[in-house]
Amino acid sequence: MSEAIQQSASSQRIEPGSVNLKATPWPESAKNLDADATAVAETIVKVLNEALASKRYDDLANIFLEDGFWRDHNALSWGLRTLQGRDAIRASMETQCNLTRINIDASSPLRNPQLANFAPAGTTMGFSFFIKLTTKHGLGRGVVRVAEQEDQYKIWTLFTTLEELTGHEEPLGSKRPNGVEHGGKPGRKNWLERREEDVDFVDKEPAVLIIGAGQGGLTAHARLKMLNVPTLIIDSNDAVGDNWRKRYHQLVLHDPVWYDHMPYLDFPDHWPIFTPKDKLADWFDAYAKMLDLNVWMRSKLLSSSWDDNQKQWNVTIERVRLDGKIETRTFHPKHIIQATGASGEMKLPTVPGMENFQGSLLCHSSEFPGVVRTETPKKVVVVGACNSAHDICQDYFEKGHSVTMVQRSSTCVISSDALLKILLFPLYSEGGPPAEDSDIWLWGWPSSVLKRIQTELTILQRKLDEPLLSGLARAGFALDAGPDEGGLFSKYLQRGGGYYIDVGTSQLIIDGKIAIKQGQEVTEIMARGVRFADGSELEADEIVFATGYDNMRTQARAIFGDELADRVGDIWGWDAEGEMRGIWTGSGHPGFWFHGGNLAMCRYFSRVLALQIKAKLEGLDG
Amino acid sequence: MSEAIQQSASSQRIEPGSVNLKATPWPESAKNLDADATAVAETIVKVLNEALASKRYDDLANIFLEDGFWRDHNALSWGLRTLQGRDAIRASMETQCNLTRINIDASSPLRNPQLANFAPAGTTMGFSFFIKLTTKHGLGRGVVRVAEQEDQYKIWTLFTTLEELTGHEEPLGSKRPNGVEHGGKPGRKNWLERREEDVDFVDKEPAVLIIGAGQGGLTAHARLKMLNVPTLIIDSNDAVGDNWRKRYHQLVLHDPVWYDHMPYLDFPDHWPIFTPKDKLADWFDAYAKMLDLNVWMRSKLLSSSWDDNQKQWNVTIERVRLDGKIETRTFHPKHIIQATGASGEMKLPTVPGMENFQGSLLCHSSEFPGVVRTETPKKVVVVGACNSAHDICQDYFEKGHSVTMVQRSSTCVISSDALLKILLFPLYSEGGPPAEDSDIWLWGWPSSVLKRIQTELTILQRKLDEPLLSGLARAGFALDAGPDEGGLFSKYLQRGGGYYIDVGTSQLIIDGKIAIKQGQEVTEIMARGVRFADGSELEADEIVFATGYDNMRTQARAIFGDELADRVGDIWGWDAEGEMRGIWTGSGHPGFWFHGGNLAMCRYFSRVLALQIKAKLEGLDG
Repeated sequence: MSEAIQQSASSQRIEPGSVNLKATPWPESAKNLDADATAVAETIVKVLNEALASKRYDDLANIFLEDGFWRDHNALSWGLRTLQGRDAIRASMETQCNLTRINIDASSPLRNPQLANFAPAGTTMGFSFFIKLTTKHGLGRGVVRVAEQEDQYKIWTLFTTLEELTGHEEPLGSKRPNGVEHGGKPGRKNWLERREEDVDFVDKEPAVLIIGAGQGGLTAHARLKMLNVPTLIIDSNDAVGDNWRKRYHQLVLHDPVWYDHMPYLDFPDHWPIFTPKDKLADWFDAYAKMLDLNVWMRSKLLSSSWDDNQKQWNVTIERVRLDGKIETRTFHPKHIIQATGASGEMKLPTVPGMENFQGSLLCHSSEFPGVVRTETPKKVVVVGACNSAHDICQDYFEKGHSVTMVQRSSTCVISSDALLKILLFPLYSEGGPPAEDSDIWLWGWPSSVLKRIQTELTILQRKLDEPLLSGLARAGFALDAGPDEGGLFSKYLQRGGGYYIDVGTSQLIIDGKIAIKQGQEVTEIMARGVRFADGSELEADEIVFATGYDNMRTQARAIFGDELADRVGDIWGWDAEGEMRGIWTGSGHPGFWFHGGNLAMCRYFSRVLALQIKAKLEGLDG
Repeated sequence: MSEAIQQSASSQRIEPGSVNLKATPWPESAKNLDADATAVAETIVKVLNEALASKRYDDLANIFLEDGFWRDHNALSWGLRTLQGRDAIRASMETQCNLTRINIDASSPLRNPQLANFAPAGTTMGFSFFIKLTTKHGLGRGVVRVAEQEDQYKIWTLFTTLEELTGHEEPLGSKRPNGVEHGGKPGRKNWLERREEDVDFVDKEPAVLIIGAGQGGLTAHARLKMLNVPTLIIDSNDAVGDNWRKRYHQLVLHDPVWYDHMPYLDFPDHWPIFTPKDKLADWFDAYAKMLDLNVWMRSKLLSSSWDDNQKQWNVTIERVRLDGKIETRTFHPKHIIQATGASGEMKLPTVPGMENFQGSLLCHSSEFPGVVRTETPKKVVVVGACNSAHDICQDYFEKGHSVTMVQRSSTCVISSDALLKILLFPLYSEGGPPAEDSDIWLWGWPSSVLKRIQTELTILQRKLDEPLLSGLARAGFALDAGPDEGGLFSKYLQRGGGYYIDVGTSQLIIDGKIAIKQGQEVTEIMARGVRFADGSELEADEIVFATGYDNMRTQARAIFGDELADRVGDIWGWDAEGEMRGIWTGSGHPGFWFHGGNLAMCRYFSRVLALQIKAKLEGLDG
């Protein structure tokens, strides 16, 4: 562990109420590295299929390691589960088992049965292979990781995820629509007329209403559309993409293009590695059009109530049409998806004296208008030390202002280079596997294994980033490595923040071009400055609080009121099994779902969510 | 030959002045079908490479059949050539040979060396393989077809096409841009600011000006952008895509999705087989945005003149900006591409009495506003019997009107089904090869061989379409099979029209729901009707002339004036070698180029054109 890294209370911080699952130990490393991987896979699959066919769940459980895992998304039962240990697996199977058959998927280098190095540090060898699966309801895929124990091959982790519902196959490739009804059909409407009627819901209603047209809303709608579910997105912005377009001036995605593909329409080969916000916004707009999604912009929910008898919502929506006409519609959707961002309301601390500030700007980062160059450079204080704070500080510096970053606790910093080369490579990289295959590889790990992997990758990352990290430490910037030193992924999954993916600001801090005020809370805002807990003061013409966001549930409370918000739990962070709490699965309130996360999570979990909703609409989950 | 098909003067009609190349005979069929295709390919390639290295062009010519072909697009010399016969090949090589080396491309089922059935009727076997090539200027690809003659393998056809210029490789995949300059760069602009400066040409000028934002303009700009050539498209319409959006109501592409992909951004898997016009228009708009093309809509050329000393244009452009402000700019591009559609001005015949017509509509199909349902059905006469005429008749029928199609000569009719199953399958089909590979396969045929293939495919097509065609003949509709019975492709390439791809109207004609007036010219327009050459009359409330378009050169005359139009030749139809006249290559006027055709032609030939322009800008063609 680098001297520069602290294991402080801040580094351990996770979403309140969530479970800090520990990293699981590695299984024994396989001894016979010359074993035929295909034969290993065939042996395992034979036992599994015989046990499934005969319902001898003892046999099935016994093919797992004693503390092996079965992670399942909608294939075994509806919802997200991670079962650990033979007893839990057997018990679950005896309660419900929609899975009927597994086949080896040997159709690409990543999918093929192969000797696999599970541990980034190279200590733990085993075998892996992708599977195709058949369930009571449809088809799916998954991945199996096999360990060798006392000369026997046992499943260490099994992952199963449903992808397609029988009778509701996605209209892709050979199932694509024709696009035209040939022949003289009196009264036939053209495509545009039919699209306009669909968007306006003329004489019909959406079965699913989505709040928010960001990556969450768009991906959920895309998946539901492929399942033929009438869906409507509403959003209060003027144009699709505004959720990104309106953010701060220099914002560029910190994740690379290979990790960010959206369902059904990959970014093309000329797309930049890091997408600028306005370009992403235009892509969202094009995406909605190219997929024929139904989006009402300049629209808001006027009222909503759940009818427990009819099992449907009563919602009233106000829409300002393009011509300025205001329209009010009442619908009765069976489901609502809140996709207003994985964060909730902004967290703007209340600091004494705020009302007396006489500088030119005091705001939360979400309201930050961007920096303008001024004749006289300004003195700026940015409170916070994660992604937004860094980007905003960099923007001020580039426009010639004098800026201090107030780092109250510690931050997990990773270079963009390390993110690409260590955390995402080779899964999400140029020439890598299709993103949806990489998703199966990644989400196919139970969270406690993922955490083990991430702790090892974090060691490698810190080694690569050593010059950067020691430079930051010398500049007085406090570093941490996330919960149990799980690094960026643990920070994101368990806390939903607390990190900076360096795209240049760290060097400005190292070089002293951006000042650091470390370890102090702001206790008072003065007319032209801030005062800290230690009594020190800083002049400030502008103050930005890049202090993050509250739980997504606070947004649910703001939109839907207390009754709903009291019924759903907090969102994000792990439950006891390591599945994310409250999102992409039952929220705790019937007919109500949360969806969101980064582009990569939205890509994978949008299908997980859409299949659950479709199953409910079709009565398959009964 | 079906009794229903005529070989009339109309069927033989081609673009005036173009050459009616005859279908070439098949070579002898290979006898040794068990030969190792890879060995055959290796033998050929070895001789070729040795001859290229030693400049022994006799050896090179002798590896061809006596009357073999070498079709070349920019690899051997700049421009489009089809050389036939050993003497022509040797002479050309001695004049110029930029090609330096050929390698076998065995990287996919279509590309691999293989026994190939050249003739659709199954009579002529040989071998084919794809090649990668290196020229003085860059890299390319191609395809070789080998015949067996007296136990020797000889090249029947060789195709070479340049794809990439050394030092100007396309920024794709591993060469994609980063998207962000990391680090604190004072004064750094964000992506949107840089885009806006690019689009507005702030303090800079385009090297290439393109007139027209249809598939021609967009594909040419896309190719030039990848070659880093500053390019501007101007178009008088309000929005990108309006060239399709404004066409008649029921218009749907008659070509399928697999044939229609545009460069760098394939249609996604959910895209319909036949794209409706408004959906294509939206795609064009998204395409321009996603590729960061510079397009000025609501813009027109006020003046243009060629400076023969400076070898550049002086152009003045008027642009109505989105806020309504009118801006005038003067630029000095080195090149202009006219991409206003492969057709020219509309052909509206002058018929005596037109001025006295008292019905509700008399127009050319290009101005046709679409049909509205009326209380009293209208009597309608549509003059013309090709794609537009059929679609317009169908629209009238579907809205309850009584319509007669006036077929003055004869038409080549092919069912949509036959187009997909016989003409385009398996090259352009679900699960088929990448479109750019199929393009090499297709354009790799010299035109006289392509014509031979098409005559055989036309026989198969007529067999499949026999019920349709005999039904039409019974209904009094006159059919033909194009120049020398080369069918749809010959009609399109040699004449640029004269066909109908049936999407339902033929059955309406067979069923008598649309009346046919055959073989008569309209000689007079009356107040409420038309009179024909035979003296017969038809009542008419509306008259639409779907009578086609003049040569593309007429548009050049309208836009650029007589001096230019007199200097360029007519466009379209074959030259003596079977390359298309005046388009995608030198027009006859320095710095002036024509580009256009259907989506598939624009995909392939946009690169052929862009490479020639880039070569001139870089002085590579000297």
